[in-house]
Amino acid sequence: MAERLIYLPLGGAGEIGMNAYVYGYGAPGKERLILVDLGVTFGDMDGSPGIDLIMPDIAWLVENRSRLEGIFITHGHEDHLGALGHLWSRLDVPIYARQFTGALCRLKLEEAGLPGEAVNITGPRPEVTQLGPFTVQFVPVSHSIPESAALIIDTPAGRIVHTGDFKLDGTPVVGDPFDPIMWHEIASEGRGIKVLTCDSTNVFSTHPGRSEALLANPILEWVMAQKNMVIATTFASNIARLKTLSEAAIASGRKVCLLGRAMRRMVSVGLETGVLTDFPDTISPDEAAAMPRGKVMLLVTGSQGERRAASAQLSRGRYLGLSLKEGDSFLFSSKTIPGNERPVGRIMNAFSELGVDVYDADDGLFHVSGHANRPDIEALHDLLKPEIVIPMHGEHMHLREHVQIARAKGLGAEIVTNGTMIDLGGERPRIVDQVETGRLYLDGSVLIGSMDGIVRDRIRMALNGHALVSVIVDEDDNVLPDAWVELMGLPGRTRSGEDLARHIEGELSEFLESADNRTVRDDAKMDEAIRKIARQVSMEEIGKKPEVTVIISRLMAD
Amino acid sequence: MAERLIYLPLGGAGEIGMNAYVYGYGAPGKERLILVDLGVTFGDMDGSPGIDLIMPDIAWLVENRSRLEGIFITHGHEDHLGALGHLWSRLDVPIYARQFTGALCRLKLEEAGLPGEAVNITGPRPEVTQLGPFTVQFVPVSHSIPESAALIIDTPAGRIVHTGDFKLDGTPVVGDPFDPIMWHEIASEGRGIKVLTCDSTNVFSTHPGRSEALLANPILEWVMAQKNMVIATTFASNIARLKTLSEAAIASGRKVCLLGRAMRRMVSVGLETGVLTDFPDTISPDEAAAMPRGKVMLLVTGSQGERRAASAQLSRGRYLGLSLKEGDSFLFSSKTIPGNERPVGRIMNAFSELGVDVYDADDGLFHVSGHANRPDIEALHDLLKPEIVIPMHGEHMHLREHVQIARAKGLGAEIVTNGTMIDLGGERPRIVDQVETGRLYLDGSVLIGSMDGIVRDRIRMALNGHALVSVIVDEDDNVLPDAWVELMGLPGRTRSGEDLARHIEGELSEFLESADNRTVRDDAKMDEAIRKIARQVSMEEIGKKPEVTVIISRLMAD
Repeated sequence: MAERLIYLPLGGAGEIGMNAYVYGYGAPGKERLILVDLGVTFGDMDGSPGIDLIMPDIAWLVENRSRLEGIFITHGHEDHLGALGHLWSRLDVPIYARQFTGALCRLKLEEAGLPGEAVNITGPRPEVTQLGPFTVQFVPVSHSIPESAALIIDTPAGRIVHTGDFKLDGTPVVGDPFDPIMWHEIASEGRGIKVLTCDSTNVFSTHPGRSEALLANPILEWVMAQKNMVIATTFASNIARLKTLSEAAIASGRKVCLLGRAMRRMVSVGLETGVLTDFPDTISPDEAAAMPRGKVMLLVTGSQGERRAASAQLSRGRYLGLSLKEGDSFLFSSKTIPGNERPVGRIMNAFSELGVDVYDADDGLFHVSGHANRPDIEALHDLLKPEIVIPMHGEHMHLREHVQIARAKGLGAEIVTNGTMIDLGGERPRIVDQVETGRLYLDGSVLIGSMDGIVRDRIRMALNGHALVSVIVDEDDNVLPDAWVELMGLPGRTRSGEDLARHIEGELSEFLESADNRTVRDDAKMDEAIRKIARQVSMEEIGKKPEVTVIISRLMAD
Repeated sequence: MAERLIYLPLGGAGEIGMNAYVYGYGAPGKERLILVDLGVTFGDMDGSPGIDLIMPDIAWLVENRSRLEGIFITHGHEDHLGALGHLWSRLDVPIYARQFTGALCRLKLEEAGLPGEAVNITGPRPEVTQLGPFTVQFVPVSHSIPESAALIIDTPAGRIVHTGDFKLDGTPVVGDPFDPIMWHEIASEGRGIKVLTCDSTNVFSTHPGRSEALLANPILEWVMAQKNMVIATTFASNIARLKTLSEAAIASGRKVCLLGRAMRRMVSVGLETGVLTDFPDTISPDEAAAMPRGKVMLLVTGSQGERRAASAQLSRGRYLGLSLKEGDSFLFSSKTIPGNERPVGRIMNAFSELGVDVYDADDGLFHVSGHANRPDIEALHDLLKPEIVIPMHGEHMHLREHVQIARAKGLGAEIVTNGTMIDLGGERPRIVDQVETGRLYLDGSVLIGSMDGIVRDRIRMALNGHALVSVIVDEDDNVLPDAWVELMGLPGRTRSGEDLARHIEGELSEFLESADNRTVRDDAKMDEAIRKIARQVSMEEIGKKPEVTVIISRLMAD
């Protein structure tokens, strides 16, 4: 049977975040593999309470580890490299990344006690990495973090361009500008481009993307107009934005203070790796607190309302000796990611109560996106003229829209979601397998499966409350008459004002007194009967059925 | 001491939703009172898991019930009347509303087993309701539900205009158009307007509000362009929108089918009370299922992604014999309320998977807001020339922005949030009291206080899981050696693969075996020690500290 060129997304195809894409080439079932990106996404109270990080279930890849040649990381965002510290040890293959990204990869590994030397720093095209049947080049693209890269993956079956996250920006402030001539070259070499695997995040934005450089003037004007302390937040990794903001500060006679671990780390990695130059000297929080308010700009983490980040801390009062006051000005130089509106709104309102003037980026003056909009995506299609477009990094609706755009141009295009393996080697893409995929949750320090029922139980307790029933059966299989009920997350009083726990106990005692021997001897039967009574009584008295846990203690004869 | 004119918001001032505003006039502490609106807001998983409805804590009003003359309901939205069924019995005073709103108030009361006759149907200005020192008129305003009203509240201390929710719409499709001449009259009568209590919801929208009538053509063109089944969702109470959508259906040769109880109810109340005329005949779901797909428009509930509404049901598959298919077109003729992005997105993606084309209102063609934007608010200020503007119905940042706008015009303006009582009778508004306010949660069928700790416990269980420990102490104060641990919402296995519950039991047994008599005899000491061990062991083994409930059963000598 002929060789296959397979593509298998394990994360990021059908969602935004948690990117992980497998490519393979070889005889069916024996393809040599590479992985592109290994990212995380974040939990939320709605779907995954108590979960810090969510990452792709890479069981398939672990099973086929002997075929895996290496991991390529396109850029340093958490949704592209955040799972390395948690999952790399299950794969144990070399990682390839450009310098700044590689430094972040090493930090991830080392923080998890893993060897940073697994990361191989790779230069941009024309440098190539040869791994099995793959020849891979990193192509600089612009995005909202320095040193983002698309990958050229050359295989015996043809050339794949995997865009990673990208935008078309001729003046990105930090990092490499979009280079149409190089892309034209890439499209013209050899047989041209067989497959374009392409970022879909912003496919619904109909205007052309705007350059990072456009922000310098509006931000400078805004900073100049503020009289007291200026505070600005953006993603810690958006180093270009940090540079623009801090340059505006300096130009208006202010000193810059970085607040938030992630931000200080990004700036220092940026400086160490040389991607960031001319970043102004910063001052410490103590120094900032001692300066006149009109002479300071704080650059702070927490643009998405994260509870522990600097923005949230400042909104709750004093943080590292600094507190915001009437007349200060706070700028969200960021877009609120859908789902984060409530926490961001809470912070804005808290600032409002302090008398702080809040500015957001809604009018477009203070933020530009890092992703290609629809016209930019179309421009890339036109420039690269791939045989097949495979949209990636998007929810289903983004992938579908992207496919429709490509097909309208006469290009081949397919929706391929997590777990679907397709063969791209033939005339037309062909589904060849469905792989079990899913999500792993980092819960405290343990990785659990999203379908293990643990989080489902948490959600149920949160919605329904939890009733605990303890009953004791003595040595002679007699139930002691008093059941004990404890409630957690349930109203103490019924509609008529009675004590709910005592009321359930009363009903349980009645049952236990008359329970026959066969029931009493059988844990499962007892459990079921007690649970049923507790739920029924609750339904009658408070209109809801709690989760119930029954503990039956059986005393043993000495 | 002189009479006071007091204003006391109990809900809606510092939040969007849950409106409830008290006005009073008389000697200090003896003011006669009226209440304007008594609404709800909705719970969410983040802050109030398991809670269906949230309403203002009206304890202060209940205490002062003997002074309360009546309740005025400005319009029929849940955030203005939704608490009547739950709280009216604690107040037991007449309710005043216009006809359509009054019909909805009666339904609320009757569904709760309360007397619908408490509702007095009141005509618009010039009809007046005289209650104690208050003379009240309902002034028709446009909003996103028929028969919205502002209130003119005349008192011996001057005239108050309470806008309710409003927009300036000369062509609202259903209901009364904005009438600048009448408003001019209202502002010119007597001593003019002392206080304008004014909707602030859209104060950050900088363009003038747009008319409902603008939607007819874009919607008609859109419907005409669709080939298969057309489905549209909007708020059930937006009867003007339902009319526009269904007229577009009829004009393009389609029949209309209403899906969702709330929508059918709104249309029937609209027809019964005469606010809705010329609504096309509708067909049943069975009839719709039997028609060619290109001949049907479904109007469905669930524009905010509500789990049980028709949109969500359709996104999950078959609903009432209907199912959506490749090539159907679904229109969100609505704005997603901040915080609902995730559930709405889930539905959009589910439709995408079914091959349904989804259209939203992001480009402004298919939805207009029901609230006055900033220029409209300013126009009302200019038209009414009040001495004092009190912004209401908004989060803190909305109220603050609104105050700044009013002050910039030289008007008096104050931020007054829930629980702050101000006297508007003097030269300048003056804070005279801070009243305990808060939120009541409807949990199942029981009203609980938001600060009772019940919901806090639910959130903690959801974040941390719940460990239950049962220990038995015998008649002689000896602890039986085996503690029993049950886990809910916690990983079963530790990092090293051990069974977590058994591991905790082991550690507890060690402690219990060596516990001294003083500890064993003392429930509180035992509880604390056991809890501490369970949390510590969990922290070591899985990296998180669960909630722990300890049940100590003490056997009694016979």
